[in-house]
Amino acid sequence: MIRFTLFVACFCLFLNKNMAQFQPNALQQSQIKRGYGMFIHFGVNTFNELEWSDGKLPATSFNPDKLDCDQWIKTAKEAGFRYVILITKHHDGFCLWNSQYTDYDVMSSSVKTDVVGEVAKACKKYGLQFGLYYSLWDRHEPAHKDKNPQVYVDFMKNQLTELLTNYGTICELWFDGGWAKKDSAWHLAEVYQHIKKWQPKCLVTVNHTIGRHEKISSIQMPSDMKENDPIRFFPVDFRTKDPNFARWDDPKVYVYDQKQYYLPFEHTLCLSDRWNWFQKKAMLPVRGVDELEELFYWSTANDNILIINVPPDQHGQIREHERLRLLELADRLGIRNGKKILPKNPKNALFNKPITATNTSTNPKNTPQKANDFSLETWWTAADSTATLEIDLEKNTLFNRLVLMEYPRMIDLKDGFSQIREFHVEQFRIDIMNGNEWEAVYVGNTIGASKIINLPVSKTATKLRVAILKSSAVPSISHVAMYLKS
Amino acid sequence: MIRFTLFVACFCLFLNKNMAQFQPNALQQSQIKRGYGMFIHFGVNTFNELEWSDGKLPATSFNPDKLDCDQWIKTAKEAGFRYVILITKHHDGFCLWNSQYTDYDVMSSSVKTDVVGEVAKACKKYGLQFGLYYSLWDRHEPAHKDKNPQVYVDFMKNQLTELLTNYGTICELWFDGGWAKKDSAWHLAEVYQHIKKWQPKCLVTVNHTIGRHEKISSIQMPSDMKENDPIRFFPVDFRTKDPNFARWDDPKVYVYDQKQYYLPFEHTLCLSDRWNWFQKKAMLPVRGVDELEELFYWSTANDNILIINVPPDQHGQIREHERLRLLELADRLGIRNGKKILPKNPKNALFNKPITATNTSTNPKNTPQKANDFSLETWWTAADSTATLEIDLEKNTLFNRLVLMEYPRMIDLKDGFSQIREFHVEQFRIDIMNGNEWEAVYVGNTIGASKIINLPVSKTATKLRVAILKSSAVPSISHVAMYLKS
Repeated sequence: MIRFTLFVACFCLFLNKNMAQFQPNALQQSQIKRGYGMFIHFGVNTFNELEWSDGKLPATSFNPDKLDCDQWIKTAKEAGFRYVILITKHHDGFCLWNSQYTDYDVMSSSVKTDVVGEVAKACKKYGLQFGLYYSLWDRHEPAHKDKNPQVYVDFMKNQLTELLTNYGTICELWFDGGWAKKDSAWHLAEVYQHIKKWQPKCLVTVNHTIGRHEKISSIQMPSDMKENDPIRFFPVDFRTKDPNFARWDDPKVYVYDQKQYYLPFEHTLCLSDRWNWFQKKAMLPVRGVDELEELFYWSTANDNILIINVPPDQHGQIREHERLRLLELADRLGIRNGKKILPKNPKNALFNKPITATNTSTNPKNTPQKANDFSLETWWTAADSTATLEIDLEKNTLFNRLVLMEYPRMIDLKDGFSQIREFHVEQFRIDIMNGNEWEAVYVGNTIGASKIINLPVSKTATKLRVAILKSSAVPSISHVAMYLKS
Repeated sequence: MIRFTLFVACFCLFLNKNMAQFQPNALQQSQIKRGYGMFIHFGVNTFNELEWSDGKLPATSFNPDKLDCDQWIKTAKEAGFRYVILITKHHDGFCLWNSQYTDYDVMSSSVKTDVVGEVAKACKKYGLQFGLYYSLWDRHEPAHKDKNPQVYVDFMKNQLTELLTNYGTICELWFDGGWAKKDSAWHLAEVYQHIKKWQPKCLVTVNHTIGRHEKISSIQMPSDMKENDPIRFFPVDFRTKDPNFARWDDPKVYVYDQKQYYLPFEHTLCLSDRWNWFQKKAMLPVRGVDELEELFYWSTANDNILIINVPPDQHGQIREHERLRLLELADRLGIRNGKKILPKNPKNALFNKPITATNTSTNPKNTPQKANDFSLETWWTAADSTATLEIDLEKNTLFNRLVLMEYPRMIDLKDGFSQIREFHVEQFRIDIMNGNEWEAVYVGNTIGASKIINLPVSKTATKLRVAILKSSAVPSISHVAMYLKS
């Protein structure tokens, strides 16, 4: 192990010298410029109240009664998305197009619409780029189980030829479910080459792109990724780890076979405020605009990308309350109808500034520093139901926006996926040190997933204090931010 | 009683014929045009954590260490208020000016500032009009207890002469505490004449202006006031009943001695989200902007007026978080620095439309009709923790804003005044009937005191449904509104 670590250390030292040379290539630049896409999960699961299914659901259960792919893409355009990524085949193997290599597709349902074709057509009509998601893991297709991996690789290549030759330009291709076999069994180099033959400008990824030095097939969380971490699935053009958030200072250079590669990160986010990639019959609450706005800025900062999952319902349409929320977000961002370039947030002035708390959980994972570090997926937890965080800005700082994110207790819904978020803060106050005295600038009740406080005037502070005055249980804070917005 | 009722009925019939002639006089027109004022409670109570005191607190306890009346009025100006009403003497009898008729005033404290004078000066500086509150009830002044009421009337007239001759133009004069003696003991006609002698353009009111036919000294709530209800305190120029809300169709004509008088209603509202007229040491949450905005529109509709209480703290300053909330509200209303005329809301399209509920409390006060009637102070209560309200709009109605107000459980804080509001709704959905199908336009979590939902596009509906999907206790709704805002 020491030898291995030493090797990695020396190797990194060597690599660091050449780091400056790593920049996005032209294709990656076009992806970064796109920046904001709609992710569309739709398929046999939609009609069975499931997130994942085993490939045995009848194709006839796919039965939208008012399928309207034009409405999906019209919504995407209005909401300022630059492209869509459509699930063409999920782990269940059900294909949303007329594939000559399987009967488990739309043509075996009562609704024989080629959904991939309809979406492609609508993207052209509304001027959006078009990308595809295709699951490596296929729980229906017998070839998937063949002892010789090449049998299934050939099957995939055939299906990919259909997808890459019949629907115009494909900007991105997402593979998922790589965990279902040994990494090597997917013959990714061969498949990648196959894709590029048909669509040289198509960017490719495999979900869970990056592995760990200790064991390359271990999941590496994007908030833990470090420069020169190993590329688990190769070759790829960008990184994914659905549905997690990269560090704000997300490193871009990763290593495969001792060579370094620049890989942007494409974030995925459910519009729903719980795990809900495929739409359910019940109308579920969607994330508040404050949360979506802050997550948008985070996800698209530093040359990364965000796609938001907006699943059509059992009628085959995006629900109106979800469409309206996306338009609200677009109005906040000033990108309604995609007319403006994507806005950027200034850097959070509180990042990694000295922080203390009046009381803190004994769990070493939940120190005060976790509230203002570069990760949204770490959090400070108090020891009591009231507590105060204090952050030293170390200089006079002008600001007019504060953002708080409370880390919830996750309540498991027993379906293996869904969790409801329970938030605890019931009253809080924000003080700033302005001169030699603390001054309260905000006294409010709940925080919830995200609270954006836009002050009507800019203020100057040298310190910031978040006092949690009342909570229904011990509170946790994952993100405290301060901005000067123009 | 029958004779009395018959008399009232005939009398009203006679009066109704002449109703159209009643319009605000020039003075009342100037008040209605002002429309929006800052109410300032400051005094000996501020330093003793009290709402009311008995006149025995030492004057020396009045001890602001950074008194800055200029800051109060500068804040009022920035926040778009047109005038201020200052408490010059509350029920405790402590006078905020140097009165030669009592020692219980600022001159007996260590801070010998004439607060009335400082506020008058600042109002002149910032171009705001200036009004006064003066308590009839005086728990300190011995003359108040004299068997001959004239003795205290003379005392008041002397103090009023001071207030009305030393501080420039006074736009309004508020009397309060009229319940402390028989109504007739205040010699109001004489006092009114005295005021008008010094300040002919000063509008006068007595809190609890309107009484009841059955017993004139009974409290008549503004949401119950009916045309030709008796004027309890006479003469006055406008009505008050602190801190309640008039009906939206607030009638304006009231009767004294068989003559009718037009009287606008001046609403009072605490900026704090609980009863908190005098500031306390603790930083209390203030009402959310959604609530303030909707209450602003309600209070200033139909030629009524709103004053918001913004109490300076023990330092003698308006707190920064309260100032910031007022500026936020001003920005919502587009009246920052008082530069624009006060905005108006269109009429709530849901008012008194047919409404039903899936379940309703057995209390006859809490029918579904109370959710969309002309009163904010009546409410529908469900029988269960989930329930749906349905309102028939009776025609196609275009809208882009919905407002919900939840009626809280009031939790008594045992000080005789303060109550905390506890809200119950944890998840709800709003559907509209558009054509022949219900369509969800919003799925959210809490409602709270007031939730304004601005849709990013206008919608058409023939029916509206509010489905409460989850509550921590039986929910109540006091107000459902639908607007088309430009």
